[in-house]
Amino acid sequence: MTWQSPKGTRDFFPADLAAIQHVESAWRNASINAGFDEIEGPMFEHLDLYTVKSGEGIVSELFSFRRAGGDTDYALRPEFTPTLARMAAAKGRSLSVPTKWFGIPSHFRAERPQRGRLREFKQWNVDMLGIDSPSADAEVIATAIRALADLGLTSDDIVVRISHRDVVAKMLLDGGLKEEQLQVALGLLDKREKMPAEIFVEKAEEAGIDPSVFTPFDNETEASHEDLATLQHELKQWDIAEWCKFDFSIVRGLAYYTGIVFEIHEANGNERAIAGGGRYDGLVEMFGGPSIPAVGFGMGDVVLSLVLRDKGLLGDGNDLLPTPDVFVVSAGEEGDAAIAETVSLLRNANLHARRSYKTTKNVGKLLTEAAKTKATFAVILGEEFTRGEYVVKNLSTKDQVTLQRADLIEHLKS
Amino acid sequence: MTWQSPKGTRDFFPADLAAIQHVESAWRNASINAGFDEIEGPMFEHLDLYTVKSGEGIVSELFSFRRAGGDTDYALRPEFTPTLARMAAAKGRSLSVPTKWFGIPSHFRAERPQRGRLREFKQWNVDMLGIDSPSADAEVIATAIRALADLGLTSDDIVVRISHRDVVAKMLLDGGLKEEQLQVALGLLDKREKMPAEIFVEKAEEAGIDPSVFTPFDNETEASHEDLATLQHELKQWDIAEWCKFDFSIVRGLAYYTGIVFEIHEANGNERAIAGGGRYDGLVEMFGGPSIPAVGFGMGDVVLSLVLRDKGLLGDGNDLLPTPDVFVVSAGEEGDAAIAETVSLLRNANLHARRSYKTTKNVGKLLTEAAKTKATFAVILGEEFTRGEYVVKNLSTKDQVTLQRADLIEHLKS
Repeated sequence: MTWQSPKGTRDFFPADLAAIQHVESAWRNASINAGFDEIEGPMFEHLDLYTVKSGEGIVSELFSFRRAGGDTDYALRPEFTPTLARMAAAKGRSLSVPTKWFGIPSHFRAERPQRGRLREFKQWNVDMLGIDSPSADAEVIATAIRALADLGLTSDDIVVRISHRDVVAKMLLDGGLKEEQLQVALGLLDKREKMPAEIFVEKAEEAGIDPSVFTPFDNETEASHEDLATLQHELKQWDIAEWCKFDFSIVRGLAYYTGIVFEIHEANGNERAIAGGGRYDGLVEMFGGPSIPAVGFGMGDVVLSLVLRDKGLLGDGNDLLPTPDVFVVSAGEEGDAAIAETVSLLRNANLHARRSYKTTKNVGKLLTEAAKTKATFAVILGEEFTRGEYVVKNLSTKDQVTLQRADLIEHLKS
Repeated sequence: MTWQSPKGTRDFFPADLAAIQHVESAWRNASINAGFDEIEGPMFEHLDLYTVKSGEGIVSELFSFRRAGGDTDYALRPEFTPTLARMAAAKGRSLSVPTKWFGIPSHFRAERPQRGRLREFKQWNVDMLGIDSPSADAEVIATAIRALADLGLTSDDIVVRISHRDVVAKMLLDGGLKEEQLQVALGLLDKREKMPAEIFVEKAEEAGIDPSVFTPFDNETEASHEDLATLQHELKQWDIAEWCKFDFSIVRGLAYYTGIVFEIHEANGNERAIAGGGRYDGLVEMFGGPSIPAVGFGMGDVVLSLVLRDKGLLGDGNDLLPTPDVFVVSAGEEGDAAIAETVSLLRNANLHARRSYKTTKNVGKLLTEAAKTKATFAVILGEEFTRGEYVVKNLSTKDQVTLQRADLIEHLKS
């Protein structure tokens, strides 16, 4: 009988985890340098937290459950914004202005797994609360770009497509859409790129919407909005204008967005969106908190890893694994009896120390094992150890010295 | 309307998270220095993975669920060992000997939350596969102690209580227990410390077991077993014998343990167990892998944090938050227009740079804000900035210099 991980989830063996941690490390570093404080919330929330704003329709996309014998509905969190809004609301009037939070939580979606879309994934969330001006939108976008640049991506690889809910709504209404069809039309527009044109037309007609209202989004549109003018000025300040363009086919699927919205894509349109975000000025108040403006984004690990791998910027993780400072081998009975004690000495000195678990007097074989781990040094408990001496070999230079116990740590740390 | 996190789960605001990350960092550092490679698995598994060994009885302790419209049962993982055994089994014959893995996954239990026991928690797992000798048991115990010592705990604070399933079984059977009552008796013994004596007697009688078979576990027992003799020798090699004692009232609740078992406790018996572990030589094979010996432990964050706080070794996390290298303020219109550009320059140089979002010409007020963040430097875009000059103030020494843009980064990094 063999066992597999659930469909749409992943086992992270050491190299796999090292690769994802490399990405997380760029995310965390960009966030901390930009003055965001890390937070985390529960892996599951009350189901209501998601249905209150998005409606019961979202339930099919969630993993929801009850405790055996319990009567409370929970759901694995599909995104972080509701948790963040709840946490901000809990702070009430004591919430700092601005509050700058980031996190790297796991998220869960019960949809069919597809390329770039799994049932469990990591997502970098960056949120800034309390600043009404598009300068905050520019700062969170700059933070996203800082991390992508640190991972090796350039403005040739990546485009930030920026839009505004008000502009999109005006374009649709000017084209003849009825006001009451707006939410449905925004939802359709959000999914438009992901389906063939004829299917899209079919879906629009099914919803009772004339597909021609979407025609203006085929072309680059000149549109003016005060927020966008301010944002453009700020993006230049951050020196990231060349990474960004306005694109009013971007609307974001989630109902809570209120103004500027954006997505980050691979520049040639490969893969799904790398990140998505925008303004959600009403959400904290909706969860019982103060009325506070907010802007943020989420960037998942799955699409980003595909893009990085495609561009040769992320390997299989094997070269990212920690390598030992020292590898201890024993080639004799005295050494065998003292190897644990030697390893203990080294680890207590905060060295990364591994050892061979083989019993052999073949030092060459043991040194081959040491070299395989990419250790900096090998410590050999051999013939010399019968006189209490340690042979230390630098595995790159092949230089070898014989040391007393008292000099061992200093030599290995130098 | 206000919203709370689900019962038994936690919101981690920045200081809370910094405190738990301090603990995680000690865990990770001890693991890496000891040559363990980090792994991670799915947050939920097929429900069968838990019931196959533990029986259907475990279901009431799990959060289990299905996808809407799906027919597969999943459960949030209550512990990591089944996932690890499944992953090891998946490697089959290519599994390295030894395989040394660690992880810091989240776990979930549907039981009633109590002091030291939440519904969601982090757990450090350290496992060593492929070494049959108690030297592996000693090495994982030494790794646990290394992390606890790094967190400030000593052998006066902590005791590792070591037992052996065979010894415990022999003691019970010698006392008159019937062979077929063994699993039930082990389960009772595991829970014995956590209930009043009269309740324990009641429960034993309910199970048809003469309570007197447990009397020998009231006293320190001399018992000999080859594994324990070897282990004792190894613990001396690791210089941790003074942290450890044999205690045959320890059995561990889980059915898969096969030999040496141990728990780590606060020395005076305060709180629940800090960690628990032991040998589980049969488990990888049971999940379809090779027959391979294994030993490991799990250490949760909840009890450990209580113990650390009680001993004054873990604060509220506020002093563990990252502090900025530099805090930028502007006290004039030229500065206001250039503050984002200045912050961008600093962050791109990999400095942790924060800024004031206030518009005021009161430099004193702005510097008070800077000092509150515990920034090393303040950069002031003031009167001098009209001539393109930056005032840099060291917030500890109060030394102040006026610099050209070209000299800014070098000064701040020095």
